[in-house]
Amino acid sequence: MSLRFALLCLVILPASGVAQSPDIRVNGERLNETMQHMHAFGENAAGGSDRVAYSSHNHVALGYLSGLMLESGLMPRFDVAGNLVGRREGRVEGLAPIVAGSHIDTVPNGGHYDGIVGVMSAIEVARSLREAVVELDHPLEVVVWSNEEGGKTGSRSWAGTVQERELDLPSLGDKTLGEGMAYIGGEPEKLAQNARGPGDIAGYIELHVEQGAVLDRQGIAIGVVEGIVGIKRWYITVSGFANHAGTTPMDQRQDALYATALMVAEIRRIITGEPGRQVGTVGRLDVSPGAPNVIPGEVLFSLEIRDLSMDKVTRLFGQIEETLTAIAQANDVDVTIDQYYESPETPTDAGIQDLVRQAAGGLGLSSLDMPSGAGHDGQSMKGIAPVGMIFVPSKDGVSHAPSEYTSPEQITNGANVLLQTVLGMDELLQ
Amino acid sequence: MSLRFALLCLVILPASGVAQSPDIRVNGERLNETMQHMHAFGENAAGGSDRVAYSSHNHVALGYLSGLMLESGLMPRFDVAGNLVGRREGRVEGLAPIVAGSHIDTVPNGGHYDGIVGVMSAIEVARSLREAVVELDHPLEVVVWSNEEGGKTGSRSWAGTVQERELDLPSLGDKTLGEGMAYIGGEPEKLAQNARGPGDIAGYIELHVEQGAVLDRQGIAIGVVEGIVGIKRWYITVSGFANHAGTTPMDQRQDALYATALMVAEIRRIITGEPGRQVGTVGRLDVSPGAPNVIPGEVLFSLEIRDLSMDKVTRLFGQIEETLTAIAQANDVDVTIDQYYESPETPTDAGIQDLVRQAAGGLGLSSLDMPSGAGHDGQSMKGIAPVGMIFVPSKDGVSHAPSEYTSPEQITNGANVLLQTVLGMDELLQ
Repeated sequence: MSLRFALLCLVILPASGVAQSPDIRVNGERLNETMQHMHAFGENAAGGSDRVAYSSHNHVALGYLSGLMLESGLMPRFDVAGNLVGRREGRVEGLAPIVAGSHIDTVPNGGHYDGIVGVMSAIEVARSLREAVVELDHPLEVVVWSNEEGGKTGSRSWAGTVQERELDLPSLGDKTLGEGMAYIGGEPEKLAQNARGPGDIAGYIELHVEQGAVLDRQGIAIGVVEGIVGIKRWYITVSGFANHAGTTPMDQRQDALYATALMVAEIRRIITGEPGRQVGTVGRLDVSPGAPNVIPGEVLFSLEIRDLSMDKVTRLFGQIEETLTAIAQANDVDVTIDQYYESPETPTDAGIQDLVRQAAGGLGLSSLDMPSGAGHDGQSMKGIAPVGMIFVPSKDGVSHAPSEYTSPEQITNGANVLLQTVLGMDELLQ
Repeated sequence: MSLRFALLCLVILPASGVAQSPDIRVNGERLNETMQHMHAFGENAAGGSDRVAYSSHNHVALGYLSGLMLESGLMPRFDVAGNLVGRREGRVEGLAPIVAGSHIDTVPNGGHYDGIVGVMSAIEVARSLREAVVELDHPLEVVVWSNEEGGKTGSRSWAGTVQERELDLPSLGDKTLGEGMAYIGGEPEKLAQNARGPGDIAGYIELHVEQGAVLDRQGIAIGVVEGIVGIKRWYITVSGFANHAGTTPMDQRQDALYATALMVAEIRRIITGEPGRQVGTVGRLDVSPGAPNVIPGEVLFSLEIRDLSMDKVTRLFGQIEETLTAIAQANDVDVTIDQYYESPETPTDAGIQDLVRQAAGGLGLSSLDMPSGAGHDGQSMKGIAPVGMIFVPSKDGVSHAPSEYTSPEQITNGANVLLQTVLGMDELLQ
């Protein structure tokens, strides 16, 4: 039977009966076996993964995935950014593809789940559809985004936001981004060809591990992601006067670190002072000169605030700015605040959220609506296509570490929700 | 007239008339000229001094001082530690010397006053005594201690506390301590010969710049040093859990830096919570991993407490330890505290304090009793000889910087108090 004839056969089945079929399930055993196979590509002595973007481990893993795609009815190709795209055609001519993506690159000494769960599940979804002889109206593209951990370079190339100068920047490995792209099969000089616009993609869906402990602590199977939080980051400099720690009486000090300590405490108070899931973090703090016997003259520290509402981020920062200024005045030091980073929030599509929620319910799985506090490739699709995200639990919330873990059952649950969601999107996004 | 005859003449003068002569003054103009000459040895483009111990600048400056000593009636020699000792014999056979010392080595890019004021003044005192044909009962030794800034090596060799392994340690310059000593004329392999015991020195007196702003702010000419403070230093490790700053809700964090901020604030509250001149400083603070988007998992910070009473230091630390433990428990982090340094307090001799106070009063100068918050060579004389110290103001309390400054008039005042104090010690320490 030729491929053309097979497609013809599928077209004559009733559409509703196919797309909403409750009987289709992924093969969980097979899925988790492919998860295990991925350990072969970059596992280190500590049991972590060193499969950083553009590394040899990364490259050969993409070869393995190309083979899996071929077995799953996906035609693999590398796009100009080095994204591996496996495509399965749809039965309705002219429809834009449904894209299911994630990544397989890790941070140095990272884990075996962040990104990988989404990629292996999306391939398994395609394979299950093929086995069940279920054709979608839309084409389905399973994308393995390149260099997520080093700056979402692959997905951002689809948004057309990768700057030419970025290609000269170092990756997490030993190559520049441009060298890395070329190494894994891209053509960085043609990067502009990757840019998509509204209508080019019917919808984007990504399954990912939560990277937090919310689902794990509450024993919930599925996170219905309401959106990816917006982020703002600032560097704050507190300038006092570096002086002799023995000869300067307590009441004559302009101690930049003491003032900073009061600031860090107040930042926490402000962030937690109102209801909501906003988070605020002081993660970096450098003291100058930093000697035990010298009163700190200057402190540089970072402030990051994340929330689904950028208005809330801005409002909380306003309160912090006011408080920091008052602390500086009261302690005879100066404070300057410079914003250096902003990533707008990416709300997910309400219709896709419903599909995820219903899919979980239909499979008898508990679910929770929640924000994604971490960034994901889906952000790059903002303004181009409706975006959806599905979370599965991360044990103890650990991420970017060898001890990162999601159980085989949780992964299978996530993949089944992904399968049902893709089927739902095929209906919804006509 | 032979020297023997001159001594004979002096001996027949009434002792009280000589030692308490109110008419002897140093030559302030000459003293401040020699202060200026010292700029020739290591002044850098920034106007600071790079005359670190054992450097070429240090070496040649010691040659200049040897000449000044010879003109001042002091017979110069280098001892085995590279201390330059200028000695003037006393008129009473068998008395131990009165020692007046300080140092001329600076920190890199240091100033022109820290140490230097004391050395140039002590030489000027000897010269003034010679010009006034005033002989002391005791021998007088003016000592230029080697490597004060790098660890008081010269004075500690007199205490016999320099360990052999220290000789292999790097100095602030390009030599080891042992190489440095040999370079400036010492014999490090014979260092043990330098050790003094009780009775070997009649008394030790040092004039020094305050290195704090207490005298300068209050417009006081002379600090009567009550003692050199005792110091204890600890490293404190706060261990939480490094986690994703986006995915970890505020109520699930074990933020080592937030807990540390509360600790730093409480340390200040405890130190200033009772009367006295104790000081406490958190000068170093390292955050790990130290990224803006990661909740700090561990913080290492230093704590230093200084006071004239080591009992008070210990008591304050006890309060701090209790509070830090409580903060750690309340914030779900661990805290460990390790003491790594202790320098006992060195009270100055009450009789010499009186001499300094009276000398200032007799010269019409204001004075203030105060601790020395900084360490000085005099500490090395603890247990060997009664110790005295005289402070002159440091403009704005600046020290170890090119902008370090004490005015010519303030230096002359200090030298006159030193002169009178030496005369008084000659009487007191019979």
